[in-house]
Amino acid sequence: MNAVRAGMGAVNDLILSRTGSDVELIPELANHLIDSGGKRLRPMLTLATAQAYGDESEARILLAASVEFMHTATLLHDDVVDESDLRRGKPAARLVWGNQASVLVGDFLLGQAFKMMVEAGSLDALGVLSDASAIIAEGEVMQLITAQNLATTEADYLKVIDAKTAALFAAAAEVGPILGNAGDEARAAMRDFGRSLGIAFQLVDDALDYSGSQAALGKNVGDDLREGKITLPVIVSYQRGSDEDRAFWTRCLAGRDVADSDLAHAIALLERHGAIAETMARARHYAEEAKASLAKAPDGAERDGLMEAVDFAVARAT
Amino acid sequence: MNAVRAGMGAVNDLILSRTGSDVELIPELANHLIDSGGKRLRPMLTLATAQAYGDESEARILLAASVEFMHTATLLHDDVVDESDLRRGKPAARLVWGNQASVLVGDFLLGQAFKMMVEAGSLDALGVLSDASAIIAEGEVMQLITAQNLATTEADYLKVIDAKTAALFAAAAEVGPILGNAGDEARAAMRDFGRSLGIAFQLVDDALDYSGSQAALGKNVGDDLREGKITLPVIVSYQRGSDEDRAFWTRCLAGRDVADSDLAHAIALLERHGAIAETMARARHYAEEAKASLAKAPDGAERDGLMEAVDFAVARAT
Repeated sequence: MNAVRAGMGAVNDLILSRTGSDVELIPELANHLIDSGGKRLRPMLTLATAQAYGDESEARILLAASVEFMHTATLLHDDVVDESDLRRGKPAARLVWGNQASVLVGDFLLGQAFKMMVEAGSLDALGVLSDASAIIAEGEVMQLITAQNLATTEADYLKVIDAKTAALFAAAAEVGPILGNAGDEARAAMRDFGRSLGIAFQLVDDALDYSGSQAALGKNVGDDLREGKITLPVIVSYQRGSDEDRAFWTRCLAGRDVADSDLAHAIALLERHGAIAETMARARHYAEEAKASLAKAPDGAERDGLMEAVDFAVARAT
Repeated sequence: MNAVRAGMGAVNDLILSRTGSDVELIPELANHLIDSGGKRLRPMLTLATAQAYGDESEARILLAASVEFMHTATLLHDDVVDESDLRRGKPAARLVWGNQASVLVGDFLLGQAFKMMVEAGSLDALGVLSDASAIIAEGEVMQLITAQNLATTEADYLKVIDAKTAALFAAAAEVGPILGNAGDEARAAMRDFGRSLGIAFQLVDDALDYSGSQAALGKNVGDDLREGKITLPVIVSYQRGSDEDRAFWTRCLAGRDVADSDLAHAIALLERHGAIAETMARARHYAEEAKASLAKAPDGAERDGLMEAVDFAVARAT
């Protein structure tokens, strides 16, 4: 987004400087993940909402970078928890440096994130982001509990993604109007915007896990199947499927017994039951809700850019 | 300590209430560790230094509890990293609920810690504690790197324990004068006090790992030997030992080849080289330094109690 290009440059510089440590392993491991170029969607939300509400302070750079560090710390811990092998098209850090270093460098990045929040100097922003930090962890624990459990309902699933993904999107967007001193209504509108966008984003992610290409995903297609994760595509297919289909999902997800050939069958079932289409329709619904909340922001290049970002988040599936 | 008895009761209540979550696994796992009754030394430092400088606010309770949560989060992650089996006399949480849940509940507690710091409302205190949070993680990574490396020097070892242990003691003691608005000199004095006490405390811990009883430790004697940790007793014995002694340490610590009978031989070597006595002498030196810094605090029941706490921290070895 053009309107935040200068700010994003400053955020990237700050991110690189704050992975620094005399303990060389730390920047080495952190930059392995950070350099592999995530989308930087979350810090972009912070910059754009701050600027939309008239804030051009250094604090917006600090908070945007801290949001990205919170996300990176989560990814490092996630890959340990999920035993993932591939992340952003590279071997997961845990495979290169081990689970132990991944846990600890994640902790380091979380500490650095809070240091930057303190430097930004807003207790309100600190409150929003520290809330998110606890909620994300709750969401990850919920995901761990629902894994392998085919009795997981759509409502359970929504609770998980609301916490593990949407909470950080919501916080990232809410700190913008906080910096702009824009008042409670603006905060609530941007929070709702971020939350809806986060849910849409995760729904698309969960659809892509079965329908995308490894190159586009940067991780293996079918990871969720192998990890026993219960996502909306599976919930839909399980509801609409025959006894035989259900037995298949139960063996793969509850039994964690997944052969190489099972992914193709899973994809065929999802297709037959319209489960990917259904998931994408929900994603579009949340994207529309995101736009309705975003419409409450002052008009300008930032708002226009964020509208496009919403479309892009949903369109990457096709 | 009598002077902080009421405050510690409030801290314990707060700790229990803030492990709460709708996700039942979280309080279950967190309380397994918290209920097993650590010494609560770190929150006691915060309460006592706050009161010594005239602060009796609710903020001191919030910061004391957040310090204990930071510590608990570290223990949960430590036990995953070290693959420990026993903690505070109970099976480590990771054995009961798995490594994954231990990592995530640690993250949750860290998030809760920062939420409480925000509620306490002091950006200065937040700065001190978020600094500590990043430094602790750096220390843990350093420890991971020096593990199994018998070229580790005393200076390296001191850097590790300064970061992984003393940084939190220093921060816990520094937030007291911050709450009491006592100025930079008081902050520096309490910081130095906490830091020296933390180093003394860790030196004693490392001596006890070879010389204590399992009942007193709450963890297995000889854990450090089995985990390849390079602590001061080993560094001293390696320096003073024969080629044969060095080969023994190298096989056990660098080679991670430890038979049941090796612990007795390790203890005999440490005894022969005076390595435990040397480590304890260093601990007493840092305890004296802690007391010299503590003497700068206003006199009263809190300072007297802290002086006794320093003695207790060193005396638990004997």
